[in-house]
Amino acid sequence: MQTRLRSALIGATAIAVAGAVQAADLTPKEQIQTRQAGYSFMSWNMGKIKSNLEGNFSQPQVQAAAEAIAGIANSGMGALYGPGTDQDIDDVKTRVKPELFTNQEEVGEVARNFIEAADNMAEVAAFGDEAEVKKAFGQLGESCKACHDKFRKD
Amino acid sequence: MQTRLRSALIGATAIAVAGAVQAADLTPKEQIQTRQAGYSFMSWNMGKIKSNLEGNFSQPQVQAAAEAIAGIANSGMGALYGPGTDQDIDDVKTRVKPELFTNQEEVGEVARNFIEAADNMAEVAAFGDEAEVKKAFGQLGESCKACHDKFRKD
Repeated sequence: MQTRLRSALIGATAIAVAGAVQAADLTPKEQIQTRQAGYSFMSWNMGKIKSNLEGNFSQPQVQAAAEAIAGIANSGMGALYGPGTDQDIDDVKTRVKPELFTNQEEVGEVARNFIEAADNMAEVAAFGDEAEVKKAFGQLGESCKACHDKFRKD
Repeated sequence: MQTRLRSALIGATAIAVAGAVQAADLTPKEQIQTRQAGYSFMSWNMGKIKSNLEGNFSQPQVQAAAEAIAGIANSGMGALYGPGTDQDIDDVKTRVKPELFTNQEEVGEVARNFIEAADNMAEVAAFGDEAEVKKAFGQLGESCKACHDKFRKD
Protein backbone atom coordinates (compact mmCIF):
# COMPACT_ATOMS: atom_id res chain seq x y z
CA MET A 1 0.00 0.00 0.00
CA GLN A 2 2.82 2.38 0.87
CA THR A 3 4.47 1.76 -2.47
CA ARG A 4 1.20 2.38 -4.25
CA LEU A 5 0.56 5.49 -2.18
CA ARG A 6 4.02 6.76 -2.98
CA SER A 7 3.34 6.04 -6.65
CA ALA A 8 0.09 7.96 -6.39
CA LEU A 9 1.85 10.95 -4.92
CA ILE A 10 4.59 10.72 -7.53
CA GLY A 11 1.93 10.51 -10.21
CA ALA A 12 0.02 13.48 -8.85
CA THR A 13 3.25 15.42 -8.56
CA ALA A 14 4.22 14.45 -12.09
CA ILE A 15 0.88 15.66 -13.38
CA ALA A 16 1.43 18.93 -11.59
CA VAL A 17 5.05 19.61 -12.44
CA ALA A 18 6.35 17.28 -15.16
CA GLY A 19 4.56 19.04 -18.01
CA ALA A 20 7.24 21.58 -18.68
CA VAL A 21 9.95 18.94 -18.53
CA GLN A 22 8.57 16.28 -20.79
CA ALA A 23 6.31 18.24 -23.11
CA ALA A 24 9.51 19.48 -24.71
CA ASP A 25 10.19 15.96 -25.98
CA LEU A 26 7.04 15.75 -28.09
CA THR A 27 5.30 18.07 -30.52
CA PRO A 28 1.77 19.16 -29.55
CA LYS A 29 0.42 16.69 -32.14
CA GLU A 30 2.52 13.88 -30.64
CA GLN A 31 1.36 14.83 -27.14
CA ILE A 32 -2.29 14.44 -28.19
CA GLN A 33 -1.56 11.14 -29.94
CA THR A 34 0.37 9.83 -26.94
CA ARG A 35 -2.25 10.76 -24.34
CA GLN A 36 -4.93 9.17 -26.53
CA ALA A 37 -2.74 6.05 -26.78
CA GLY A 38 -2.62 5.91 -22.99
CA TYR A 39 -6.38 6.24 -22.63
CA SER A 40 -6.98 3.65 -25.37
CA PHE A 41 -4.72 1.17 -23.66
CA MET A 42 -6.31 1.79 -20.28
CA SER A 43 -9.74 1.36 -21.87
CA TRP A 44 -8.79 -2.07 -23.22
CA ASN A 45 -7.64 -3.09 -19.76
CA MET A 46 -10.79 -1.71 -18.14
CA GLY A 47 -12.73 -3.84 -20.62
CA LYS A 48 -10.74 -6.92 -19.60
CA ILE A 49 -11.51 -6.36 -15.93
CA LYS A 50 -15.20 -5.83 -16.80
CA SER A 51 -15.34 -9.05 -18.84
CA ASN A 52 -13.66 -10.94 -16.00
CA LEU A 53 -16.28 -9.64 -13.57
CA GLU A 54 -19.06 -10.60 -15.96
CA GLY A 55 -17.64 -13.98 -16.94
CA ASN A 56 -14.99 -16.35 -15.65
CA PHE A 57 -12.90 -14.42 -13.12
CA SER A 58 -9.15 -14.80 -13.73
CA GLN A 59 -7.25 -13.11 -10.90
CA PRO A 60 -3.92 -13.02 -12.82
CA GLN A 61 -5.60 -11.40 -15.82
CA VAL A 62 -7.37 -8.83 -13.63
CA GLN A 63 -4.17 -8.07 -11.73
CA ALA A 64 -2.19 -7.62 -14.96
CA ALA A 65 -4.87 -5.31 -16.36
CA ALA A 66 -5.05 -3.31 -13.13
CA GLU A 67 -1.25 -2.91 -13.01
CA ALA A 68 -1.19 -1.68 -16.61
CA ILE A 69 -3.83 0.94 -15.77
CA ALA A 70 -2.01 2.00 -12.58
CA GLY A 71 1.29 2.25 -14.42
CA ILE A 72 -0.18 4.49 -17.10
CA ALA A 73 -2.13 6.54 -14.55
CA ASN A 74 1.07 7.24 -12.63
CA SER A 75 3.21 8.07 -15.67
CA GLY A 76 2.70 11.82 -15.53
CA MET A 77 0.22 12.25 -18.36
CA GLY A 78 -0.10 15.91 -17.43
CA ALA A 79 3.02 16.33 -19.56
CA LEU A 80 0.85 15.46 -22.57
CA TYR A 81 -1.38 18.52 -22.14
CA GLY A 82 1.23 21.11 -23.11
CA PRO A 83 0.70 24.37 -24.97
CA GLY A 84 -1.03 23.90 -28.33
CA THR A 85 -2.68 20.61 -27.36
CA ASP A 86 -6.04 22.25 -26.64
CA GLN A 87 -7.29 21.89 -30.22
CA ASP A 88 -7.30 19.55 -33.25
CA ILE A 89 -3.99 19.39 -35.12
CA ASP A 90 -4.23 18.27 -38.75
CA ASP A 91 -6.06 14.92 -38.69
CA VAL A 92 -5.55 14.47 -34.94
CA LYS A 93 -8.75 15.40 -33.16
CA THR A 94 -9.02 16.05 -29.43
CA ARG A 95 -12.15 16.10 -27.28
CA VAL A 96 -10.49 18.02 -24.44
CA LYS A 97 -12.43 21.06 -23.18
CA PRO A 98 -10.66 24.44 -22.80
CA GLU A 99 -11.47 24.30 -19.08
CA LEU A 100 -8.80 21.64 -18.57
CA PHE A 101 -6.14 24.23 -19.35
CA THR A 102 -7.59 26.96 -17.14
CA ASN A 103 -8.92 25.09 -14.09
CA GLN A 104 -5.70 23.59 -12.72
CA GLU A 105 -7.06 23.12 -9.22
CA GLU A 106 -9.99 20.97 -10.35
CA VAL A 107 -7.80 19.13 -12.86
CA GLY A 108 -5.37 18.26 -10.09
CA GLU A 109 -8.23 16.98 -7.95
CA VAL A 110 -9.73 14.67 -10.59
CA ALA A 111 -6.23 13.49 -11.53
CA ARG A 112 -5.35 12.63 -7.93
CA ASN A 113 -8.69 10.86 -7.45
CA PHE A 114 -8.10 8.85 -10.62
CA ILE A 115 -4.57 7.86 -9.61
CA GLU A 116 -5.72 6.84 -6.12
CA ALA A 117 -8.56 4.77 -7.59
CA ALA A 118 -6.17 3.13 -10.09
CA ASP A 119 -3.67 2.32 -7.36
CA ASN A 120 -6.45 0.93 -5.14
CA MET A 121 -7.68 -1.20 -8.06
CA ALA A 122 -4.18 -2.66 -8.47
CA GLU A 123 -3.87 -3.31 -4.72
CA VAL A 124 -7.24 -5.05 -4.56
CA ALA A 125 -6.59 -7.06 -7.74
CA ALA A 126 -3.40 -8.44 -6.20
CA PHE A 127 -5.51 -10.06 -3.46
CA GLY A 128 -8.17 -11.04 -5.94
CA ASP A 129 -11.39 -11.07 -3.91
CA GLU A 130 -13.98 -10.73 -6.68
CA ALA A 131 -16.42 -8.63 -4.61
CA GLU A 132 -13.63 -6.22 -3.63
CA VAL A 133 -12.42 -6.07 -7.23
CA LYS A 134 -15.94 -5.21 -8.37
CA LYS A 135 -16.13 -2.40 -5.81
CA ALA A 136 -12.69 -1.01 -6.72
CA PHE A 137 -13.54 -1.26 -10.42
CA GLY A 138 -16.72 0.76 -9.86
CA GLN A 139 -14.77 3.42 -7.98
CA LEU A 140 -12.14 3.56 -10.74
CA GLY A 141 -14.84 3.90 -13.39
CA GLU A 142 -16.38 6.77 -11.42
CA SER A 143 -13.02 8.55 -11.27
CA CYS A 144 -12.68 8.23 -15.07
CA LYS A 145 -16.23 9.52 -15.56
CA ALA A 146 -15.64 12.50 -13.25
CA CYS A 147 -12.91 13.78 -15.59
CA HIS A 148 -14.84 12.94 -18.77
CA ASP A 149 -17.89 14.81 -17.50
CA LYS A 150 -15.90 17.90 -16.60
CA PHE A 151 -13.18 18.06 -19.22
CA ARG A 152 -14.16 15.96 -22.25
CA LYS A 153 -16.48 16.98 -25.07
CA ASP A 154 -19.01 14.30 -26.08
CA MET B 1 11.64 -9.07 -7.11
CA GLN B 2 9.35 -12.02 -6.46
CA THR B 3 6.32 -9.93 -7.31
CA ARG B 4 7.98 -8.74 -10.50
CA LEU B 5 9.01 -12.27 -11.37
CA ARG B 6 5.48 -13.48 -10.80
CA SER B 7 4.23 -10.64 -12.97
CA ALA B 8 6.70 -11.64 -15.66
CA LEU B 9 5.46 -15.21 -15.59
CA ILE B 10 1.85 -14.07 -15.58
CA GLY B 11 2.64 -11.81 -18.52
CA ALA B 12 4.36 -14.57 -20.44
CA THR B 13 1.47 -16.87 -19.70
CA ALA B 14 -1.02 -14.24 -20.76
CA ILE B 15 0.84 -13.76 -24.03
CA ALA B 16 0.70 -17.49 -24.56
CA VAL B 17 -2.89 -18.21 -23.60
CA ALA B 18 -4.96 -15.06 -23.25
CA GLY B 19 -5.28 -14.39 -26.96
CA ALA B 20 -8.35 -16.49 -27.49
CA VAL B 21 -10.02 -15.04 -24.42
CA GLN B 22 -9.56 -11.35 -24.95
CA ALA B 23 -9.26 -11.07 -28.72
CA ALA B 24 -13.00 -11.73 -28.76
CA ASP B 25 -13.55 -8.36 -27.10
CA LEU B 26 -12.00 -6.33 -29.91
CA THR B 27 -12.28 -6.38 -33.70
CA PRO B 28 -9.04 -7.13 -35.58
CA LYS B 29 -8.81 -3.41 -36.43
CA GLU B 30 -9.23 -2.47 -32.76
CA GLN B 31 -6.62 -5.07 -31.78
CA ILE B 32 -4.06 -3.45 -34.12
CA GLN B 33 -4.95 0.04 -32.87
CA THR B 34 -4.72 -1.06 -29.24
CA ARG B 35 -1.37 -2.83 -29.56
CA GLN B 36 0.00 0.22 -31.40
CA ALA B 37 -1.33 2.41 -28.57
CA GLY B 38 0.57 0.28 -26.07
CA TYR B 39 3.81 0.52 -28.03
CA SER B 40 3.38 4.29 -28.51
CA PHE B 41 2.87 4.82 -24.80
CA MET B 42 5.86 2.64 -23.94
CA SER B 43 7.93 4.57 -26.49
CA TRP B 44 7.09 7.87 -24.79
CA ASN B 45 8.16 6.42 -21.46
CA MET B 46 11.38 4.99 -22.94
CA GLY B 47 12.09 8.48 -24.23
CA LYS B 48 11.55 9.93 -20.75
CA ILE B 49 14.03 7.50 -19.21
CA LYS B 50 16.52 8.28 -21.99
CA SER B 51 16.19 12.04 -21.45
CA ASN B 52 16.62 11.54 -17.70
CA LEU B 53 19.84 9.59 -18.33
CA GLU B 54 21.08 12.29 -20.71
CA GLY B 55 20.02 15.25 -18.58
CA ASN B 56 18.93 15.85 -15.01
CA PHE B 57 18.17 12.46 -13.47
CA SER B 58 14.83 12.39 -11.65
CA GLN B 59 14.41 9.02 -9.89
CA PRO B 60 10.63 9.45 -9.39
CA GLN B 61 10.14 10.28 -13.06
CA VAL B 62 12.28 7.30 -14.16
CA GLN B 63 10.46 4.97 -11.75
CA ALA B 64 7.05 6.13 -12.96
CA ALA B 65 8.09 5.64 -16.59
CA ALA B 66 9.55 2.21 -15.87
CA GLU B 67 6.40 1.10 -14.04
CA ALA B 68 4.21 2.24 -16.95
CA ILE B 69 6.34 0.19 -19.35
CA ALA B 70 6.31 -2.86 -17.06
CA GLY B 71 2.55 -2.60 -16.59
CA ILE B 72 1.94 -2.51 -20.34
CA ALA B 73 4.51 -5.25 -21.00
CA ASN B 74 2.73 -7.55 -18.54
CA SER B 75 -0.79 -6.84 -19.77
CA GLY B 76 -1.02 -9.77 -22.16
CA MET B 77 -0.55 -7.96 -25.46
CA GLY B 78 -0.49 -11.33 -27.19
CA ALA B 79 -4.28 -11.01 -27.12
CA LEU B 80 -3.91 -8.14 -29.61
CA TYR B 81 -2.43 -10.38 -32.30
CA GLY B 82 -5.58 -12.35 -33.02
CA PRO B 83 -6.77 -13.72 -36.38
CA GLY B 84 -6.98 -11.04 -39.08
CA THR B 85 -4.48 -8.70 -37.43
CA ASP B 86 -1.63 -9.79 -39.71
CA GLN B 87 -2.42 -7.16 -42.36
CA ASP B 88 -3.54 -3.56 -42.85
CA ILE B 89 -7.25 -2.95 -42.18
CA ASP B 90 -8.73 0.11 -43.87
CA ASP B 91 -6.54 3.07 -42.84
CA VAL B 92 -4.93 1.12 -40.00
CA LYS B 93 -1.51 -0.07 -41.14
CA THR B 94 0.54 -2.71 -39.36
CA ARG B 95 4.25 -3.43 -39.72
CA VAL B 96 4.01 -6.90 -38.22
CA LYS B 97 5.69 -9.68 -40.23
CA PRO B 98 3.80 -12.89 -41.04
CA GLU B 99 6.44 -14.83 -39.10
CA LEU B 100 5.01 -13.53 -35.82
CA PHE B 101 1.90 -15.61 -36.42
CA THR B 102 3.73 -18.77 -37.41
CA ASN B 103 6.81 -18.84 -35.15
CA GLN B 104 5.14 -19.07 -31.74
CA GLU B 105 8.20 -20.50 -30.02
CA GLU B 106 10.44 -17.60 -30.99
CA VAL B 107 7.66 -15.07 -30.31
CA GLY B 108 7.27 -16.49 -26.82
CA GLU B 109 11.02 -16.21 -26.25
CA VAL B 110 11.32 -12.55 -27.33
CA ALA B 111 8.16 -11.73 -25.37
CA ARG B 112 9.48 -13.34 -22.18
CA ASN B 113 12.85 -11.59 -22.60
CA PHE B 114 11.08 -8.25 -23.07
CA ILE B 115 8.88 -8.73 -20.01
CA GLU B 116 11.85 -9.77 -17.87
CA ALA B 117 13.83 -6.72 -19.05
CA ALA B 118 10.86 -4.42 -18.38
CA ASP B 119 10.39 -5.87 -14.89
CA ASN B 120 14.10 -5.55 -14.18
CA MET B 121 14.00 -1.93 -15.38
CA ALA B 122 11.17 -1.21 -12.92
CA GLU B 123 13.00 -2.95 -10.08
CA VAL B 124 16.21 -1.03 -10.72
CA ALA B 125 14.38 2.27 -11.17
CA ALA B 126 12.81 1.85 -7.72
CA PHE B 127 16.30 1.91 -6.19
CA GLY B 128 17.40 4.66 -8.55
CA ASP B 129 21.13 4.11 -8.98
CA GLU B 130 21.77 5.95 -12.24
CA ALA B 131 24.48 3.56 -13.49
CA GLU B 132 22.22 0.56 -12.82
CA VAL B 133 19.29 2.32 -14.50
CA LYS B 134 21.44 2.98 -17.55
CA LYS B 135 22.42 -0.70 -17.72
CA ALA B 136 18.82 -1.91 -17.29
CA PHE B 137 17.61 0.62 -19.87
CA GLY B 138 20.16 -0.69 -22.38
CA GLN B 139 19.02 -4.26 -21.76
CA LEU B 140 15.39 -3.25 -22.16
CA GLY B 141 16.15 -1.45 -25.42
CA GLU B 142 17.91 -4.57 -26.70
CA SER B 143 14.86 -6.69 -25.87
CA CYS B 144 12.65 -4.29 -27.86
CA LYS B 145 15.06 -4.33 -30.78
CA ALA B 146 15.22 -8.14 -30.79
CA CYS B 147 11.49 -8.30 -31.54
CA HIS B 148 11.58 -5.41 -34.02
CA ASP B 149 14.43 -7.04 -35.94
CA LYS B 150 12.65 -10.38 -36.15
CA PHE B 151 8.99 -9.49 -36.44
CA ARG B 152 8.59 -5.87 -37.59
CA LYS B 153 8.84 -4.61 -41.16
CA ASP B 154 10.92 -1.45 -41.60
